[in-house]
Amino acid sequence: MDIREHFKDQAYYIDGVLDDCLAPLKESVLYAAMSYSLLSPGKRLRPALCLAVYESCTRDRERIKPVLAAIEMVHAYSIIQDDLPMMDNSDLRRGKPTTHKVHGADMALLASDALLTLAFAQLSSPAMLEAFGADRCLQAVQTMARLAGADGLVGGQAMDMITSSDEQVELGTIEYIHRNKTGALIQASVLLGGIFGCASDADMGRLNAFGENFGIAYQIVDDVADASETEEQTGKTAGQDVKNRKATYVSLLGLSGAKEKALQYLATARQAAVSLDIGGEFLISLVDLLAEKVRS
Amino acid sequence: MDIREHFKDQAYYIDGVLDDCLAPLKESVLYAAMSYSLLSPGKRLRPALCLAVYESCTRDRERIKPVLAAIEMVHAYSIIQDDLPMMDNSDLRRGKPTTHKVHGADMALLASDALLTLAFAQLSSPAMLEAFGADRCLQAVQTMARLAGADGLVGGQAMDMITSSDEQVELGTIEYIHRNKTGALIQASVLLGGIFGCASDADMGRLNAFGENFGIAYQIVDDVADASETEEQTGKTAGQDVKNRKATYVSLLGLSGAKEKALQYLATARQAAVSLDIGGEFLISLVDLLAEKVRS
Repeated sequence: MDIREHFKDQAYYIDGVLDDCLAPLKESVLYAAMSYSLLSPGKRLRPALCLAVYESCTRDRERIKPVLAAIEMVHAYSIIQDDLPMMDNSDLRRGKPTTHKVHGADMALLASDALLTLAFAQLSSPAMLEAFGADRCLQAVQTMARLAGADGLVGGQAMDMITSSDEQVELGTIEYIHRNKTGALIQASVLLGGIFGCASDADMGRLNAFGENFGIAYQIVDDVADASETEEQTGKTAGQDVKNRKATYVSLLGLSGAKEKALQYLATARQAAVSLDIGGEFLISLVDLLAEKVRS
Repeated sequence: MDIREHFKDQAYYIDGVLDDCLAPLKESVLYAAMSYSLLSPGKRLRPALCLAVYESCTRDRERIKPVLAAIEMVHAYSIIQDDLPMMDNSDLRRGKPTTHKVHGADMALLASDALLTLAFAQLSSPAMLEAFGADRCLQAVQTMARLAGADGLVGGQAMDMITSSDEQVELGTIEYIHRNKTGALIQASVLLGGIFGCASDADMGRLNAFGENFGIAYQIVDDVADASETEEQTGKTAGQDVKNRKATYVSLLGLSGAKEKALQYLATARQAAVSLDIGGEFLISLVDLLAEKVRS
């Protein structure tokens, strides 16, 4: 199957999973804001990465559903907060008004909290315990909590806010931001696929390296897109970085320098994927797809 | 030991625990805002409840430390967000400027996220796994995630926001808010004490009933205090509820009606504590202390 087709097939499957996992909350006052964000069309890259790794080990898709949902919930939580007036103050996301524009800042914030918390509820649910045993579920909770926290996603976001109007930011700081704000959840996604797919310790190390490097590259490509594409192409308010005088790989290294950096990170990610014992065809194809985008 | 002395002794112990558990993040950009909130002097009621239940079963305080910290972290997260301009917009908490007043709304929000996430990291840490085994740790994660989420703490907060300027709110709605916004985390605290202290299923049911009823009573007493005490006494901006035209037990039932309700919930909580096989002396004393406050 072509990688684009495979990716679409996975996103379609994941959309159904998200719907199912949020359904028990239909009566909640927070359902409207939670579903507006979580079920809004998206690429589902992070759960797709988890699913791909998991399916390299085993074919039983059913059991991994709560994990796929948990990953996208953490992503949705970070997006809602990222867009808030007190943060990036964005009106548009994926071509639609942002959650706080539709549901108000208070409900948007509480929906994000509920999504983060629900992610941990998913990973520790009785169904997960029965399917995978307590040890692996707890390892997943620990991995997600570590990578989503002050030393991961939230730490990256905090550094991003602190340096947001500082044009003198060093490359190392931007790398820290990308590694954590974007890379950490991508890392968590492949690691959770490995944990529940029973990857070996050696493969867990390779998945870690893949996630880290692919994550940074993915964010650099996003910076490149912000600098060179139109609003219609990205679905977000374009040219935000320049408008916000935000230091990025592009502002520091120029467009071609940023692209070169992205290709370096992608090469490292590819190497890690190639050496996986469980097989990394999907991950390799994804790297090649992103590299193609960079070169175009 | 007198209950007040015992309570102070516990708070002192918990302060040390909080310090220890946050220390690994000293280098983080979020440490200042996280510690400002978490280490700010407080009663430490919730971890004290957990510790009391745990110590009814076993005397080994060391092992439960990450759990005590996790509970106070969730409490601190909820307080930071509660005070934000987009929520209650409070300038004062425990007699000190609120976290966003000192660290800015963006850092305050991210610190709250980091605290919530760190709570789950604490409950699933390698040290916890070694001390209690994966099954009990996972049960604790599930309990906390369920009671802190859309059907618990966050759901209560959402309902509170939705009805915040509605003077026609029904008593059932206010009860829902108190049960979730305040009660759920108190419930989680005693349940976690029971989980790690190996309480029987019957006792877990009693702890659940205690937490639920004590939690609601505790919030009613807070409403009563807001209506009748000065700022100096509560450490918070007083008279907020009336100023915000907020419906409370006091606005609906009057001061004496609200007090009577509180005493009813306390009586139910006391009954549950009395019937505990593990012994509920501390919980009973706490109920009696609160009842005394209501009657004074």
